[in-house]
Order: sequence, then C-alpha cells, then structure tokens
Amino acid sequence: MREFELIAMLRQRLQAGRGDTRLGPGDDAAIIAPPAGHEIVVTSDTLVGGRHFPDDTTAFDIGFKALAVNLSDVAAMGAEPAWVTIALTLPDLQSDWCRAFIDGVLAAIGTAAVDIVGGDTTRGPLSITVTAFGLVPVGGAIRRSGARPGDLVCVTGTLGDAALGLRLWPGAAGDGDHARWLRWRLCRPQWRHGVAMRGLAHAALDLSDGLAADLGHILVASACGARIDVDRLPASAAFDALCPAGDRPGLQLAGGDDYELCIVVPETGFAQLAAMLDCPLTAVGCIEAEPGLRLVDANGALMTTDYRGWDHFR
Amino acid sequence: MREFELIAMLRQRLQAGRGDTRLGPGDDAAIIAPPAGHEIVVTSDTLVGGRHFPDDTTAFDIGFKALAVNLSDVAAMGAEPAWVTIALTLPDLQSDWCRAFIDGVLAAIGTAAVDIVGGDTTRGPLSITVTAFGLVPVGGAIRRSGARPGDLVCVTGTLGDAALGLRLWPGAAGDGDHARWLRWRLCRPQWRHGVAMRGLAHAALDLSDGLAADLGHILVASACGARIDVDRLPASAAFDALCPAGDRPGLQLAGGDDYELCIVVPETGFAQLAAMLDCPLTAVGCIEAEPGLRLVDANGALMTTDYRGWDHFR
Repeated sequence: MREFELIAMLRQRLQAGRGDTRLGPGDDAAIIAPPAGHEIVVTSDTLVGGRHFPDDTTAFDIGFKALAVNLSDVAAMGAEPAWVTIALTLPDLQSDWCRAFIDGVLAAIGTAAVDIVGGDTTRGPLSITVTAFGLVPVGGAIRRSGARPGDLVCVTGTLGDAALGLRLWPGAAGDGDHARWLRWRLCRPQWRHGVAMRGLAHAALDLSDGLAADLGHILVASACGARIDVDRLPASAAFDALCPAGDRPGLQLAGGDDYELCIVVPETGFAQLAAMLDCPLTAVGCIEAEPGLRLVDANGALMTTDYRGWDHFR
Repeated sequence: MREFELIAMLRQRLQAGRGDTRLGPGDDAAIIAPPAGHEIVVTSDTLVGGRHFPDDTTAFDIGFKALAVNLSDVAAMGAEPAWVTIALTLPDLQSDWCRAFIDGVLAAIGTAAVDIVGGDTTRGPLSITVTAFGLVPVGGAIRRSGARPGDLVCVTGTLGDAALGLRLWPGAAGDGDHARWLRWRLCRPQWRHGVAMRGLAHAALDLSDGLAADLGHILVASACGARIDVDRLPASAAFDALCPAGDRPGLQLAGGDDYELCIVVPETGFAQLAAMLDCPLTAVGCIEAEPGLRLVDANGALMTTDYRGWDHFR
C-alpha cells in the first residue's frame, strides 16, 4: 500500500458531514466555521505503542482508544465534539491494519456528529496523536476551577476496570467473560457525553490517571479540598469478581485509563444531572474548604496511602 | 526532571497573549473564541526523529522545524496563524533538551501572535505532532482548486536549499559558510506570511515534497495543467556554489523540505503580490488548459524525467 492510497482510503471513509465544515482533508489545511455564539475547546493526546496500550492490541482497538481519550477530554469541558485531526505514525502500511484502525475510529465516534478534517501519515514507531475540537456556548465550558465546599464529588460508570483489565491481559488469568469484559474496558473506553453538565456542574474532568491524582487537579484549581468515601467508589460486577481485595483501592483510585467523568455538582443539582446523563452517576464524596484530599475507608477511618497517578517519565 | 515539571516549565514560558484565547493549557482542553466573520483553518503535521530530521539535529532546530512546517500550511491558506497545540513524545526528559526545544518553538513563532494552547508529553521514540490553527475572513481562504489557464505559477524564496543541505550534513562536504547556510535552511525553514495573497492569489500551497509533486496537487484540484521553465527556478548563492550541475533540477523540483509557497496568481496581480510579500517572489511558469505538468529546460526542450515527490512509505 502506498501513502496516497491510504490517504485516499481515509478520505473515502471519512466524509465530512457537518454543515460547518467548510473544507475537509486534502488541502494545506481544513476549514471549519464555528457557529456564532460558540467557543471552541481544543485538546490533543498522544498514544504510543507498547506504552499506552499493549503491543498486541488490535488496530481496531487502537483507533477506538485514540479517539475516545480525546473525545472524553472534550466532553469533560461540557462541549459537544465536532472535529478531529488524526496524526498516525506507523512502521509500515498494511491495508488490513489501516482498515481496522479506521473502523475503530468510526466506532469510537459512534453517532456523534464529528468530522475528521485532517491529519498526517508518517512512517516510524507506532503512535497516534489526535487533536479534538468541541463546541460550547460562549462562557459555558466547565473548567476545573469552579468546585466549592459542600459540592458533591461524583463519578460516572465504574472505576478500576481498565487497570484490572491490563493485569488480566490475555493468558495471565484465564479468559472468562469477566476478564474479557475488563480488557474491553481497557481497550474501548466509553467516552461520556458531557453536554448534560452545562448549567449544573461546577467543575469536571475526565479520569485518565486515576481519581486521586485527577481530582487533585480540581482541588488545586479550585483552592479547596475533598473527602472521598472509598467504599462508595462504583465497581463493575467483573471487577468485584476478579479484583483481589487488597488491590481494590489502588486500582480504583490510581489505576488510570478509566475515562469516566469526575463531576463536581451542588447537591441540589445531583438528581437532575443523574437523570440527564446517559450513564450511571455515583456521589463518592464532597468538596471541603480544607485543602488536600482525604480518603476514608469502609470503617470511616482516614487512609494514609498516597495514591498518586501516573507520571509517564517515572 | 518529572513530567509535571516539564509541563510547569512549558506553561511558564508559553503564556497566552491573544485576547481570543479564553483558556490556555492546564484544563482538559483549551478554549478559543474566534472573532465573528472568521473561519478557522486547521492542519496537523508530525515530525519523526531520524526520518524528518537527522538524528543529531539540535533540540532547538527540532522545535523550530516542528512549528515552521505547520505555520507554513496555515500561511499557505492565506490565514493568519493564531493557535497551536504541541504533542511531544521523547525517550527521556532532559531539562536542557526541553528548554532548547521550547526556545526553537518560540523562535519559529517569532513575532507572530500565536498562542500555544495545549498539547501532550509522552514517553517513547522521539516525535512531535503540532496542530496549528489560523484565522481567515469567511470565504477568504486560498485553496488549491482555483488555478486558471493563463495564471502565473510563482514561488517564494529559493528552491533546493534544504535538500542540498541534507546532503551536506556535517562532515560530508566541508564546512564552509555555504554548507552551513544550506543546513540552516533545512533545519530552520522560514515560513512565509500568506495574508498578502488574499484577494490576489487563485491557488496556493506550501512546498514540502518538491515543486513537481506539490504543484501536481494544484493541477489535479484545479483540473488544469502547467508549464514550468526549469531554468527560472530561483536558487540561492550557496546552492549555485555547491550544487553539482546534473543534480540541480532534481533537487529543485523534487528535493522537498523547502517550505516556500507556490502561488498561482493572474499576471495582473503579480506586481502587487510581490510588493506585499515579505520575501522574493519569482514567476517560474504558467497554468495551461492541457492537463499534466510540462517541464521545459534552459534550451526550451521538454524534459522527460519524472520528478516525483516523497512517499513516506516507499
């Protein structure tokens, strides 16, 4: 397969559908025309082969994850994903691989009105950088800095699945339905639609490095602290079945790769937010004036372990 | 150096200065607010270590080039560069390297009002993906599809310097002023300001793969052909001094990495465009109705060599 054939295949599969996409891929740059009264949120994340996903991850899952982690960032701002660019670096061009990659990209986009407006294909060690753009009404983005004492700290979905799924990578621990489901959670993170948070949430972010580290960003930006009831952290049936008891808090608080939303919302807004989201929402703690993150265990005792997140260079 | 230290250093050095940057790096996404009456052009290019630049390229030059090749794409649309994101993957975090990289990034931006609004740092084989955004009045972008028979084909600056500079990589052919200058042209491509083209140029692109291949994109998009007088291709004094005569057309037509603009402009607009650009402009041929690219040598004879451009996977 030649580079121009890949590009031609990409273009054919990735037709622009949005009215506000003035020019799709194929020129020096694409042209987008954001509607009046809106701002654009922009985020860029890279996945490196063997580091952000196991080397034997399928092309479909790599495409899926590269999109999902970026759309998740857009959603965490309360924005509606609208455009992406995909820069794909790969060792050689195999058409089957590329087709499966694109299938994964499209599956992650799902029914969202997202146009792929550009990118680059280069030869080198496998890595993917996606830049994603979302639309939000002027002033309506949900930042990390709005948390206030008394607000609830909530999370969508379940925590710890992806980290346990990585431990259970093929062969390691049997291949039952639970293990397969946990690996699926690692490979195909389900980004959540964040538009429902508008006008309700005070702060939000998506969980990539684990709740303890990521919530810390909200606490610093909002100049406050929080208390988390660790026994309230939502877990899946598969996680309950396969997670060794002692590893539970570590995987749920610092496992990373969950791509669930952490949402800070006043108590009065919780029910409405839970009803509008397309996934379960669980209150796991509250914002406090005193700085720092306090983790409380099932017995109400303060935990002392420091569940730090992921430093890519450690 | 830890990852958060790098990010802190980046943020400190890269303060947002534009009024329409609502939120810089540090949240899930940045927020930009394009002014009314404008569209946004978007482009994304990756540089891979050892492939897009020699392994011993300095960090400064890598940062410079990663920005320049993207700003060049924005400029080629007739847009004014406004924002970039930088996704940096590198094997280990050395603060000296990172500082020099950022110095190079800022040098490439120069006096342009460009904010760095986000990005990512990950560990892995060296590569950089920059996504660049520019502003252009609604409908004012210069595409590849507007060339018409009779238009002049023009190029900015000089052609072939970067390709010859790569041949003369340290040691290979002495280290005189000319060789150093040619290597400098390879490492620090000077992106051209394309705003001057608005209302004058019919089509434009930036020259990354060589004039023969890149002009071909304009000819296909515009459904026309062109004739290029190869003896009119502008060359630098260093190129004239060091290029073997037989290699001249190949390096100028297919060498790549020049990042000059190829501009198609009606004859009546040439003088005004040349006066408004901040660099020399040379007419090297003309658009013709008959499809295909015809290269004419110094004797007026049609050349038969196929000067194809660069396929990253060949």
